[in-house]
Amino acid sequence: MKHIAILGSTGSIGTQALDVIAANPDKYNVTVLAAYHNEQLLQEQIEYFKPQLAVLIDKQAADRLAASYRGPTQIVTGEEGLLEAAVFHQTDTVLTSLVGFAGLKPTIAAIKAKKNIALANKETLVAAGQLVMALAKDYNVSVYPVDSEHSAIFQCLQGENNKHIGRIILTASGGPFRGRTAKELAHVTVEDCLKHPNWSMGRKITIDSATLANKGLEVIEAKWLFGVAYDQIDVCVHPQSIIHSMVEFIDGSVMAQLGMPDMRLPIQYALSYPERIPSKFPRLDLTALSALTFTEPDTGNFPALKLAYTAGNKGGTMPCVFNAANEVAVYAFLQGKIGFLDIAQIISYTMEIHSLVTTPDLEQIYAADTWARQCALQAVSDLGRKA
Amino acid sequence: MKHIAILGSTGSIGTQALDVIAANPDKYNVTVLAAYHNEQLLQEQIEYFKPQLAVLIDKQAADRLAASYRGPTQIVTGEEGLLEAAVFHQTDTVLTSLVGFAGLKPTIAAIKAKKNIALANKETLVAAGQLVMALAKDYNVSVYPVDSEHSAIFQCLQGENNKHIGRIILTASGGPFRGRTAKELAHVTVEDCLKHPNWSMGRKITIDSATLANKGLEVIEAKWLFGVAYDQIDVCVHPQSIIHSMVEFIDGSVMAQLGMPDMRLPIQYALSYPERIPSKFPRLDLTALSALTFTEPDTGNFPALKLAYTAGNKGGTMPCVFNAANEVAVYAFLQGKIGFLDIAQIISYTMEIHSLVTTPDLEQIYAADTWARQCALQAVSDLGRKA
Repeated sequence: MKHIAILGSTGSIGTQALDVIAANPDKYNVTVLAAYHNEQLLQEQIEYFKPQLAVLIDKQAADRLAASYRGPTQIVTGEEGLLEAAVFHQTDTVLTSLVGFAGLKPTIAAIKAKKNIALANKETLVAAGQLVMALAKDYNVSVYPVDSEHSAIFQCLQGENNKHIGRIILTASGGPFRGRTAKELAHVTVEDCLKHPNWSMGRKITIDSATLANKGLEVIEAKWLFGVAYDQIDVCVHPQSIIHSMVEFIDGSVMAQLGMPDMRLPIQYALSYPERIPSKFPRLDLTALSALTFTEPDTGNFPALKLAYTAGNKGGTMPCVFNAANEVAVYAFLQGKIGFLDIAQIISYTMEIHSLVTTPDLEQIYAADTWARQCALQAVSDLGRKA
Repeated sequence: MKHIAILGSTGSIGTQALDVIAANPDKYNVTVLAAYHNEQLLQEQIEYFKPQLAVLIDKQAADRLAASYRGPTQIVTGEEGLLEAAVFHQTDTVLTSLVGFAGLKPTIAAIKAKKNIALANKETLVAAGQLVMALAKDYNVSVYPVDSEHSAIFQCLQGENNKHIGRIILTASGGPFRGRTAKELAHVTVEDCLKHPNWSMGRKITIDSATLANKGLEVIEAKWLFGVAYDQIDVCVHPQSIIHSMVEFIDGSVMAQLGMPDMRLPIQYALSYPERIPSKFPRLDLTALSALTFTEPDTGNFPALKLAYTAGNKGGTMPCVFNAANEVAVYAFLQGKIGFLDIAQIISYTMEIHSLVTTPDLEQIYAADTWARQCALQAVSDLGRKA
């Protein structure tokens, strides 16, 4: 029996993780559930899974939950509550499926409490990959990827020596706007973005997928998870999302992991590893699918991907700045404050005026994040004035 | 330094194995070279690789070689010479790339002499898989697959537990006649068969590839190499020959191995395992390729594949009979004695009148092989009289 804490239990990854756990009650039990503010869904989850501890980060939502819930689960709130949840004594593995930079602090707390991490919060590694992976090594805990691409790479590397990696080939669906020019992208709406062809995901990652910033974040995440150089990470557009990623080894052999686009599979693998457990997920039937195709990513019309490589190669605080500016710009776009193309513009602008700290400690990472958010917010507001 | 014996050094697999060894003189040296009758090529190989022992199975060819060769390599001949070659004391790994049932005896001899086997002779496992794998276990030696499909599966299983296999998906190019009907196949020639779309191979396997008997042999080979049931082995036609085979695990995840169609890669992997070593083989560039497609195999027009499953499921001596009848029929077809469709007919007829031995020992396997050859030769001769 593995004891699982889920940070971000009411989101897309969190609810699918609970599906996996509900299907395997003999293998998993839930110790902790944490969410931002969806008190109604969290209460349903608490009543079904009966964790010892539950967190609503939003204090008002937590008060409402405390008023309506009568049961043994302890309810806490705020960032202190989230950190308490991350280190809960009975947990073996913490699934970090919080959105954005907010996932960093609880992930670090969980590592220091010697919890294995099932990482769905890629921003943690983007912002502080070097520090987080070093910490995981120091505390002798494992970081299991949940992202479908990184789960694919992790599976390709089973039984292999990481020294034999030639390059990693991250596949990308290309998002809902694959094939469009910048001119055509100028006026796309939030609703256009949310029509992702293959994956049903949260709002933030769906916008990131439309700009290819998500693939950029994944490049940086892959760098830290698998210890390769940036020039060993290629992105390949594969619109069918059947091959979830690949590894080419030094002998020229390419290993790939395939499956239907269903996040429950990589979530389950991160929880069951090194075991595989039976599932009822839809099976891949290659003969029933359309042909599998592959093209180069269009970094001209989708510059966020190129910016992520630039940020990664600069290193230090730059990936953190890339991520922070992107988060601010995406939320501004979701709120209708800026256009689609402004997202990459704001990332680019923020990176340009950032004073790089080459080997930052955690305080300097937090400071860079705060600085980049202010800078990007100012850029959003300047764009608003111009419009 | 690994010490390699190559049984079948002048054939397609043998010469490509020597390419791999020549490219890695710091890692491999050749102890033994054995061939049927190509004394000229064998002499060149002896002079370059300087093995301690060389075999020409054909006695007249061996005499000619002995007359022209002046050097330290000892030349032997005949089946006794081949068996001496298989057990040569200084060898670590024996690459068995002999064609057909003739590979069985030296493979068994090598296993008993505690040599690891790099197996390119699938007929050995088709005829006597249960006995050979049990022997390998008893003598604590490894059998590494060289066939590209089985190498792919072997790579997919690295770091995995074989108990987690859901099914094996053997890919097939479909051969040169994919999409043709039996009527269209009635008059195809040897030359038509030898135009294989993707792979450059020896003559026997090229015919087997055209009839899909090769895929049938591979199904049986996979059964013994990986310890699965026949209903866990599916064949999928993939005309581009880029995905070399796949494994679906019990959780629904599918691992695949991809590469350009180049036998040097699986040969090198069988020799270097568990290491991977750098190579200059052409790299896979998915964006430069046409789309990857997948269809069901056409067992109506290509019945040899279905006959192989039938033989496998009957078990005992039946796969040996399938193989022997196929060998005889293929050579008769190569000699222009029978038509293309007669190959599967002869296999089917021979299997039908065979008296199955359910748990044969090695003697009974040899007897079944001899019986099936006589039966198939008689069928060839009857067809000749009818025509």
